[in-house]
Amino acid sequence: MHRSAIICSVAAFFVLNGTAFAEGDQQAANKKNVVAFYEAAINHKDFAAASQYLGPRYTQHNPNAADGPDGFKRFIEFLREKFPNAHSEIKKVFADGDYVILHVHAVREPGTRGNAIVDIFKLENGKIVEHWDVIQPIPEQAANGNGMF
Amino acid sequence: MHRSAIICSVAAFFVLNGTAFAEGDQQAANKKNVVAFYEAAINHKDFAAASQYLGPRYTQHNPNAADGPDGFKRFIEFLREKFPNAHSEIKKVFADGDYVILHVHAVREPGTRGNAIVDIFKLENGKIVEHWDVIQPIPEQAANGNGMF
Repeated sequence: MHRSAIICSVAAFFVLNGTAFAEGDQQAANKKNVVAFYEAAINHKDFAAASQYLGPRYTQHNPNAADGPDGFKRFIEFLREKFPNAHSEIKKVFADGDYVILHVHAVREPGTRGNAIVDIFKLENGKIVEHWDVIQPIPEQAANGNGMF
Repeated sequence: MHRSAIICSVAAFFVLNGTAFAEGDQQAANKKNVVAFYEAAINHKDFAAASQYLGPRYTQHNPNAADGPDGFKRFIEFLREKFPNAHSEIKKVFADGDYVILHVHAVREPGTRGNAIVDIFKLENGKIVEHWDVIQPIPEQAANGNGMF
């Protein structure tokens, strides 16, 4: 192999790993942070543990929750008090740019069909700063046999 | 600049563009195809135009729609007949791996608040083969002023 070809191969390796894969690394870290946040908040109902994943703001688009980290804290307290056995199973995790998207099966009372939910989180510097969701009760009957997940 | 450095720069450029960005290219193409499919199907209500974006199957997880391309065709015919002025505005488009996710404001009757929807599409070879969604009516009152989008 010509000397310049060897240098090129080594250089290309570092270029690929240092630059092109950096975005993928951030998205993987964002996915990990959002899943850890979700487990702490929604399943363990532990706002203190969840809050380490929050940034300086938490802009809330769920129409039933008050804005900000404090609104989210009150939502977790509501869950802990009214639905202590509520459990959400994350079915899929996606990331694109600064966003992480979760497809979730949420059951507030064990034994009930529960809700299908998609949560969208925006992150800045690896911290969660904004949240949107869409929630739909899972119906008893369906026009196909594929389930909602 | 040393000759080998120039060769390296050129080589790195082609490595980056040919290999590392290939996944991004496919995801960009998938986004474009899903948006075109959605506009043709949901807004133009033109199944024939939309069907060019479908693969050999269309596994349906929306509990109100029958399975397969034919089930989707019947849903488009239902929209065209019952809600000819229905319009959906795509607010955000995400892609991760084989999946494209849309965050959509769907209004069946102009002047009504409509629904917040997240649609998830799976693609194989650039064609849509599977669909999930979650749909929630936008409430009149909200606990925050940020809107659902």
